[in-house]
Amino acid sequence: MPEFFTVLPPEAALAKWFEHVPAAAQPETVALADALDRVTAASIRAPAAVPAFPRSIMDGYAVRAADTFGASQTLPVYLAVIGEVPMGRAPAFNLQPATCAVVHTGGMLPEGADAVVMIEVTQQSRENEIEVLRAVAPGENVLRVGDDIAEGMEMLPAGHRLRPQDLGGLAAVGIVSVTVARRPRIALLATGDEVVPPEVEPAPGQIRDVNSYAVAGQIAHAGGAPVRCGIAPDDYEALLTMARAALDDADMLVLSAGSSVSVRDMTADVINALGQPGMLVHGVALKPGKPAILAVCGGKPVVGLPGNPVSAMVVADLFVVPAVQRLQGAVASTPRQAARAKLTHNLPSQAGRVDYTPARLVTRNGERWAEPVFGKSNQIFTLVLADGMIITPADANGLQAGEMVEVRLF
Amino acid sequence: MPEFFTVLPPEAALAKWFEHVPAAAQPETVALADALDRVTAASIRAPAAVPAFPRSIMDGYAVRAADTFGASQTLPVYLAVIGEVPMGRAPAFNLQPATCAVVHTGGMLPEGADAVVMIEVTQQSRENEIEVLRAVAPGENVLRVGDDIAEGMEMLPAGHRLRPQDLGGLAAVGIVSVTVARRPRIALLATGDEVVPPEVEPAPGQIRDVNSYAVAGQIAHAGGAPVRCGIAPDDYEALLTMARAALDDADMLVLSAGSSVSVRDMTADVINALGQPGMLVHGVALKPGKPAILAVCGGKPVVGLPGNPVSAMVVADLFVVPAVQRLQGAVASTPRQAARAKLTHNLPSQAGRVDYTPARLVTRNGERWAEPVFGKSNQIFTLVLADGMIITPADANGLQAGEMVEVRLF
Repeated sequence: MPEFFTVLPPEAALAKWFEHVPAAAQPETVALADALDRVTAASIRAPAAVPAFPRSIMDGYAVRAADTFGASQTLPVYLAVIGEVPMGRAPAFNLQPATCAVVHTGGMLPEGADAVVMIEVTQQSRENEIEVLRAVAPGENVLRVGDDIAEGMEMLPAGHRLRPQDLGGLAAVGIVSVTVARRPRIALLATGDEVVPPEVEPAPGQIRDVNSYAVAGQIAHAGGAPVRCGIAPDDYEALLTMARAALDDADMLVLSAGSSVSVRDMTADVINALGQPGMLVHGVALKPGKPAILAVCGGKPVVGLPGNPVSAMVVADLFVVPAVQRLQGAVASTPRQAARAKLTHNLPSQAGRVDYTPARLVTRNGERWAEPVFGKSNQIFTLVLADGMIITPADANGLQAGEMVEVRLF
Repeated sequence: MPEFFTVLPPEAALAKWFEHVPAAAQPETVALADALDRVTAASIRAPAAVPAFPRSIMDGYAVRAADTFGASQTLPVYLAVIGEVPMGRAPAFNLQPATCAVVHTGGMLPEGADAVVMIEVTQQSRENEIEVLRAVAPGENVLRVGDDIAEGMEMLPAGHRLRPQDLGGLAAVGIVSVTVARRPRIALLATGDEVVPPEVEPAPGQIRDVNSYAVAGQIAHAGGAPVRCGIAPDDYEALLTMARAALDDADMLVLSAGSSVSVRDMTADVINALGQPGMLVHGVALKPGKPAILAVCGGKPVVGLPGNPVSAMVVADLFVVPAVQRLQGAVASTPRQAARAKLTHNLPSQAGRVDYTPARLVTRNGERWAEPVFGKSNQIFTLVLADGMIITPADANGLQAGEMVEVRLF
């Protein structure tokens, strides 16, 4: 059976596919405490300034800065201590010239004060009087209203994955529920007469379903909700029926397509029958992962993964993960996690093809090395033994032992 | 009030603390589908070999390799096709000399066969007979029993955080429930007369609790279960009562300690009253984060965070996160996520102190630059605006503009 592949490089394949993949996320509102790692559905502006009142950032004395001008060790300025700012309340007094008030870190400045003198540059001269040994400028040691964030300022853009500090920022302005993208439901359908669920003891000739579990983990890390839809037999009608039901109930469908050519062709036919425009990419200049299928059926993305576990995970990393992020409207901001290391072995490659090689990071004489994990036919344990993937770019003819390479970490 | 600090470098402080922090995790069993990111409680050995039978890794013909020796384009070997291996079942025949059988990728080799000839190097000569145009060696294009993983081999060590591929590997051998470390419960107690929960509109002088939300996110990312225990007033008895209740119900207590010296001293006293040995480290050679408190009380770790949000998150990153991992028995294996970039500004520092500076990654003329986010007094939005932290090591007197630095990404 002939195998026709219009093989595009991975980026071109992704771009072609994404022309048809909707970027719009469906919003839902969650409590602040549940919003970690969720993606903002809209930009968020600060409803109030932080701080909302001038705050001391030191332990010391709230002063009128002008009163301290000229103060020095030899010629101190004397100020009357008229009170102490209570924590958590507005001071009941305001500051007249030549007076000051005890203030703690985080305390509110009284009316009239515009700076804080650190306790370390003062001396008590007598009861209720201090010597100031150094001048302070207006605003010194004070957080002014809005110094952390101004009212109305954009705090977080739309499509931003919420990090721990973002939850802190939202708490600071009193946002206790957040509108985020609903987690897209990603249906996973394994195929193959030989595939049984992991809880079943395989008969001779049968193997357990690996990809539904491994790819579900990748989907969950990307913010999606994986939905395992079982295992379809190598039968066109049965596969089509199960694939249609899975897609109807989800935002995206990932088929683990089996590895024999006839099964792959059947998968392609099934995907084309699921809806328009159907298959957009069949084959990517990628190793492993060449037989990847990228499709959109009735407005929903559909991916056909190669059956081999490493191929399936590489294709999922390159296409399923970005699609799951896109379905949340996520804008990627930080570079992918990577480590630099010296390569232990030559890695031959073909120009025009991107190669992914599982690798282990090892330390030799204090240096970090990347050691390829070679395994026959890219089975799952080559990845279990690896810390990441060495990527040989399309414009390279291979990588040399001793060369410094980037290992994209898992 | 005098402030005594025995300031240790961060690593020495962690090591001193960890002498008293138990590394033992409490095990629990979870379903495979729920095991992502959990930490294995014991090493896991393969209960069965994968594959369990010799499998073809190509579409082609199962053969006895010896039959093909000498085969070439000009002098093909003729083999009788005696059947087709069904997917998912053991073939009902075995292979006699000079015969072969159709086999698909993933199919089981019949008894007698020891190699597979790819379909591309064969030709059909007549019905039920093929010409083999190239010799194959025994084992060629075949995954033998245990080629992916051998029976009894250690698949995963204890203390290993389960990644997507690890779930795949466990599925491959039929392990559908996994013994992992119970998520440690980490109590978070904010303190301060001025602090109100985020849902409350602060009166003048009051601010919202930021740290309980930001640090909860860091704890969750480290695999812990954060438990927010509210806000204690600046009162020794009240704080002690709330801290004791929080610690009783948790595996670890994190106090967000306020920033004024008197409040910090009270926090230290409360921590010492919680149990033996009490405070082990008071002060770290770190900026921001110097006033960190590390303690163990009655066998449970207790941390006093500085009240300032950036300080709190730096201290949490350096001490709370490793402790949460230690309470799961986790063994860190991969290096921390970091990006290399050129520094846009000089960053002065003091030798002997580790500095953390929030930084944004920006691209200029195709180069990646790290731009420090300067903010008065390290408020939360300096971190919201940042992509990571530039670390100035203790043995440096600062970093120079234009220098290549590592940015530890959030």
